[in-house]
Amino acid sequence: MSNRVTITQVAQEAGVSIKTVSNVLNNTGNMRPETRERVREVMNKLGYQVNLAARSMRTGATKLIGLGIADFSQPFNPYLTDSIIQAARSRGYGVLTSTYGYHNQDVESIVGETHQLPADGWIFFTGQPVKEDSVIFQQTYPVVLASDFNAFDKVDSVTMLSYEGVCEVVERLLVAGKKRIAFAGAPLRKNLESEADYVARIKAAKFGTVDVRSRAYIDTLEKAGQALDSRYLLHSEFLDHKNGAQLVKGLLAAVEQGKLEMPQVMVCANDALAFGMIHELAKNNIAIPGDVELVGFDNVPEAHYSNPTLTTINPHVDDYAEHAVNFLIERIEGYKGPTRRYSSPCTVEVRQSCQL
Amino acid sequence: MSNRVTITQVAQEAGVSIKTVSNVLNNTGNMRPETRERVREVMNKLGYQVNLAARSMRTGATKLIGLGIADFSQPFNPYLTDSIIQAARSRGYGVLTSTYGYHNQDVESIVGETHQLPADGWIFFTGQPVKEDSVIFQQTYPVVLASDFNAFDKVDSVTMLSYEGVCEVVERLLVAGKKRIAFAGAPLRKNLESEADYVARIKAAKFGTVDVRSRAYIDTLEKAGQALDSRYLLHSEFLDHKNGAQLVKGLLAAVEQGKLEMPQVMVCANDALAFGMIHELAKNNIAIPGDVELVGFDNVPEAHYSNPTLTTINPHVDDYAEHAVNFLIERIEGYKGPTRRYSSPCTVEVRQSCQL
Repeated sequence: MSNRVTITQVAQEAGVSIKTVSNVLNNTGNMRPETRERVREVMNKLGYQVNLAARSMRTGATKLIGLGIADFSQPFNPYLTDSIIQAARSRGYGVLTSTYGYHNQDVESIVGETHQLPADGWIFFTGQPVKEDSVIFQQTYPVVLASDFNAFDKVDSVTMLSYEGVCEVVERLLVAGKKRIAFAGAPLRKNLESEADYVARIKAAKFGTVDVRSRAYIDTLEKAGQALDSRYLLHSEFLDHKNGAQLVKGLLAAVEQGKLEMPQVMVCANDALAFGMIHELAKNNIAIPGDVELVGFDNVPEAHYSNPTLTTINPHVDDYAEHAVNFLIERIEGYKGPTRRYSSPCTVEVRQSCQL
Repeated sequence: MSNRVTITQVAQEAGVSIKTVSNVLNNTGNMRPETRERVREVMNKLGYQVNLAARSMRTGATKLIGLGIADFSQPFNPYLTDSIIQAARSRGYGVLTSTYGYHNQDVESIVGETHQLPADGWIFFTGQPVKEDSVIFQQTYPVVLASDFNAFDKVDSVTMLSYEGVCEVVERLLVAGKKRIAFAGAPLRKNLESEADYVARIKAAKFGTVDVRSRAYIDTLEKAGQALDSRYLLHSEFLDHKNGAQLVKGLLAAVEQGKLEMPQVMVCANDALAFGMIHELAKNNIAIPGDVELVGFDNVPEAHYSNPTLTTINPHVDDYAEHAVNFLIERIEGYKGPTRRYSSPCTVEVRQSCQL
């Protein structure tokens, strides 16, 4: 760290003022793009490195956002991470990613780690509910909760209009005259819980990805005067490829044993689950959309390349990520107002797996 | 930042020494797991936050690794990122991710950004060659190049035994009596370049993912005394789903025009390309492995769930990531020895798309 190149040396070599170099570093100020480019070239040539520790001491800010996310084992998470990196970069922030592990740990498990990482604030993306007294609401840094769970007005949060998206899909299926519409990825059933209690539990749910999406399915059927057959609420522990495949295995066994008629359409709680189901259906030579139709949720890029391509609900992840990042940066930069909640809109992308 | 909770307050509240709190923070020292857990709980309860700026000023280290990677538009990249996060965490480091965009920019474009981010060193994963005078070799922080390109002995680097992996697959296909083995994802052909010059260019290649993997294919055919038909070197601009699909479109057009007989097996330069090819083949009702067989490269988790599941070369990404992280941390922690290059082994994972 001796012989550190100074901002003055960069300015001299580039033939510009120190202020101009500072503007280039902070991506501010008005100058010709060529000038900005030349200063960057000189910085690279000289190996100029911002003295970050000194800057942090001075400004108290690292210009870094932390993202706490399960892991990248299903395609929604890297897609969201990419979108958050893009949104943060457009605001001059970098992103530091910590994973807590989809199947093993809850988001609180990385709170200790966040204190060792120099982010100005954190976005926590969680697939499990966060309790009102959770440590993530008790941090000294700004937090945005990205999830379908209650933030208890403790922090800003972003969610998706999942309920409305699923309602629209089920309505369109009913209008198209589809029978035996199933919902895949419903909440787990509890031991000894009656079917009526199970459905009542879902109908009472206000939060949670699987709960809210399942409730939208139940409510839309009811609204249309259709009797709910709770055997078509196909529950699974996690919303990933593996659970999608397992769910189809269970379904086919039930059909074979004469316990259930094959659904005509399966609305899936997310795309990863749908991909796993497509895989297992194909393995059993069940044609999609010929024998059964499928609708996903997320519109991950892979939905264009599955076989068949996946009809899915598009929750506009770019918009969702942008709002999460903007909420967080506003807090970092001093906004002290009441907590906010933003929901990104959901629209339907029709592809091969279901002709809506 | 006033009313900051101090390490002394944490120690008092937890009933331990300041040294113990310090050991918890740095994941060092011997103590009962319950003690470590209790100290963490107190830190969370009090909202203790490490004064990172002060710590950085004191130690000069941020305990952060930077990862420069194109983006997450194809499944290898999030898989690698997840593996790097895991490897870094096991060494007590966090990971800061910067993307430079797969299709638009080269890795050098984020060097300016790296100087604004507080990482102790950077791993650059690149799909394009890096020139000997590249700015990434001229940085004041330690660098590890993760790629199939030359690091010119300027920095430590990790690569894969791609050449050996592809040789093994092609050998096994030849032993199994397969005819018309194609290689998908070969380097782009240059305008006015003769077929002989094109093949000679590949055969002379020492580096580069597509070049080395293509060369392995050519060498193995030659070694077995098989004439190379360069029309079966299927070139594509990028190794992603979209280019895989386009490549199949071109191939089918050539077959229809009688210019080429359909290959019996296609060895693909990576899994994303194979997924795109599977998609387009399925769309055209071409059965895999009935009509054509496919082999991928990467063994991304999705290879278990494609239809059919993908036979692929496993480059042991965990091992690759661990070596990249260890090389970097050794440099960060003061190792000054000669540059090193590690290659992770490649083994073949046989699934449905090709019975090797």
